[in-house]
Amino acid sequence: MREAKPPPPQDFPPTPRTRVKRLGYRACYDRETVYGILDAGLVCHVGYVIDGQPYVTPTAYWRDGDRVYWHGSSASRMLRRLKEGVPVCFTVAHLDGLVLARSGFHSSINYRSVMAFGTAEPVTGEVAKLAALEAFSERITPGRWAEQRAPTKQELKATLVMSLELEEVAAKVRDGPPADDEEDYALDVWAGVVPVRRVIDPPEDDPRLIPGIAAPDYLGAVKID
Amino acid sequence: MREAKPPPPQDFPPTPRTRVKRLGYRACYDRETVYGILDAGLVCHVGYVIDGQPYVTPTAYWRDGDRVYWHGSSASRMLRRLKEGVPVCFTVAHLDGLVLARSGFHSSINYRSVMAFGTAEPVTGEVAKLAALEAFSERITPGRWAEQRAPTKQELKATLVMSLELEEVAAKVRDGPPADDEEDYALDVWAGVVPVRRVIDPPEDDPRLIPGIAAPDYLGAVKID
Repeated sequence: MREAKPPPPQDFPPTPRTRVKRLGYRACYDRETVYGILDAGLVCHVGYVIDGQPYVTPTAYWRDGDRVYWHGSSASRMLRRLKEGVPVCFTVAHLDGLVLARSGFHSSINYRSVMAFGTAEPVTGEVAKLAALEAFSERITPGRWAEQRAPTKQELKATLVMSLELEEVAAKVRDGPPADDEEDYALDVWAGVVPVRRVIDPPEDDPRLIPGIAAPDYLGAVKID
Repeated sequence: MREAKPPPPQDFPPTPRTRVKRLGYRACYDRETVYGILDAGLVCHVGYVIDGQPYVTPTAYWRDGDRVYWHGSSASRMLRRLKEGVPVCFTVAHLDGLVLARSGFHSSINYRSVMAFGTAEPVTGEVAKLAALEAFSERITPGRWAEQRAPTKQELKATLVMSLELEEVAAKVRDGPPADDEEDYALDVWAGVVPVRRVIDPPEDDPRLIPGIAAPDYLGAVKID
């Protein structure tokens, strides 16, 4: 791929870990791109190490300001480990399409990804935890937090919320058509992009829903890449 | 979530790393479930460790028999590291829906995920490499391998193909409606599932496509969860 791009701003100065070494023109270190990719998704993959063994756990996340958050049970292996303050790699990737070039070698994928490094920290204190969980709920289903049954003290205790400062972070993006070897453009083979995207289907009522309760309007606005 | 399930077969005996400790009823160790989840996806997240730092790289993968494969440039940081034979965690996760319970605490996500541990090995030899790349191509776009320009010796050399034996592996699945606290079912709040899925849009011709070349039929059969 050889598409030319103007040099983007570097809000997040690249470090040895975040500098994209291969296909560096796909890298973005600006806040707008990084936050745009993060705010479009729901599931991240968190990498951490226990006794030299890497673990990669998929989990829901959200962003608030210069931090990303995820949560889970206080009893989970991942979160018990992370609250010790270990290095993590936080990765989000959205698949946008198959790029079918005239050769397999130049075939590719259109995607938007973010990789962040740092030490995850637990969110402590009931007030901060509640605020974080509310931000998560409102990101996905704005308005629902006030409708649903509020967390109990016991539930809050059983919930660990982790956060990672967005400091050492980079995005990598590929879009557009294939970039074939010049001589391959003459070949008699189809080439192009097969776009892939996520859709939200109509909500399905809980079988035990009280008759007459309609699906709320905010469900129509849910969008996840 | 308290849905009852019959005990599934354990084709992959759980190890300390793959035994699902929390919500163990969501775990599956049978080949049919694990392979079904793997065969439905395109992008995995590979975790590995360099100098104690975890890295999580999203990349395309495919399965062939009892192995998963991924590939990339021989120059990539991930692949250079992996061909030394280091421990990896290979994770695939498909998002199927938002589970909106009457409380935030019981709200969840419907998903299918697989986590595999082991040591990734490079596929060596031109014949084996070609066979692996053909399997990848045919998994996504059956019939295209014979149409497109074949890999050159130089391209093959520049491509590293890695594989991981599926041996220490587990799946985790959540589906179905929310499972609220019994007393919350009386609350006047909507609950249910918002289904999420991936769709494939109509193919977009390469701007430099030779006029008259139609998009091939196999594009209509592409499916990626």
